[in-house]
Amino acid sequence: MKQALEQAKLSAKHGEVPVGAVIVHNGKVIVKERNKMRELNDQTAHAEILAIRKALLILNESRLKKCDLYVTLEPCTMCAGAISLAKIRRVYYGAEDKKGGAVDNGVRFFSAKTCHHKPEVIGGIEEQAAGLLLTKFFALRR
Amino acid sequence: MKQALEQAKLSAKHGEVPVGAVIVHNGKVIVKERNKMRELNDQTAHAEILAIRKALLILNESRLKKCDLYVTLEPCTMCAGAISLAKIRRVYYGAEDKKGGAVDNGVRFFSAKTCHHKPEVIGGIEEQAAGLLLTKFFALRR
Repeated sequence: MKQALEQAKLSAKHGEVPVGAVIVHNGKVIVKERNKMRELNDQTAHAEILAIRKALLILNESRLKKCDLYVTLEPCTMCAGAISLAKIRRVYYGAEDKKGGAVDNGVRFFSAKTCHHKPEVIGGIEEQAAGLLLTKFFALRR
Repeated sequence: MKQALEQAKLSAKHGEVPVGAVIVHNGKVIVKERNKMRELNDQTAHAEILAIRKALLILNESRLKKCDLYVTLEPCTMCAGAISLAKIRRVYYGAEDKKGGAVDNGVRFFSAKTCHHKPEVIGGIEEQAAGLLLTKFFALRR
């Protein structure tokens, strides 16, 4: 999660909402990504989506069954859907997102009947640090 | 929707689950896409996601507020999230997806409190043709 937080900080430096994600396979970090919606002019370019796409290519696998995702913010609905489709084993997230989250807030997708792969979820890892980055980022822009 | 169906047929020819999507801007088709999960080895490469990403680049806009999406199958949770993030104006879809849909089935994301842009939705357009393509595709593989 420390490495995901570094990615989130890098996002803020680039004027992006500070969220970072890391994918671990066999105890090794194989991908580090961050939000790039502005940089790529792509609303789907959330840290998690970019990390999943890259990990699938690196491993040359159709699913990420042996991979764990570390992300600084609770995944949104789009990302929760992608995590499930990619069959990620475990999700560790930092700050909760009451406004846009879809894991422990909102549609709680992993508990839905239409969710066909439910990862193990551990929330609140480095929660304060992750939340503070977001608070600071938005405070500077208001 | 006819053009989206053509894309779906093309998907099947490539061994992909037959779903096609088209984005219309100012009455003009600007993007045609289809499922490419196998081709790109990317579980996020649903027709809708690819179409949204391409339309954002073509229009060089950060959102697709004046765009309508035609897709042959009810969008899944990931795609419903992406449609909302991209602020697509209207979604026309073909067949319902009771197992994986997230618009009129499953988490019904556009009605959730965590959905911050709700497109207008018109379902059941060329429903039979869209559904038949899927039924045939899976029948051949079972």
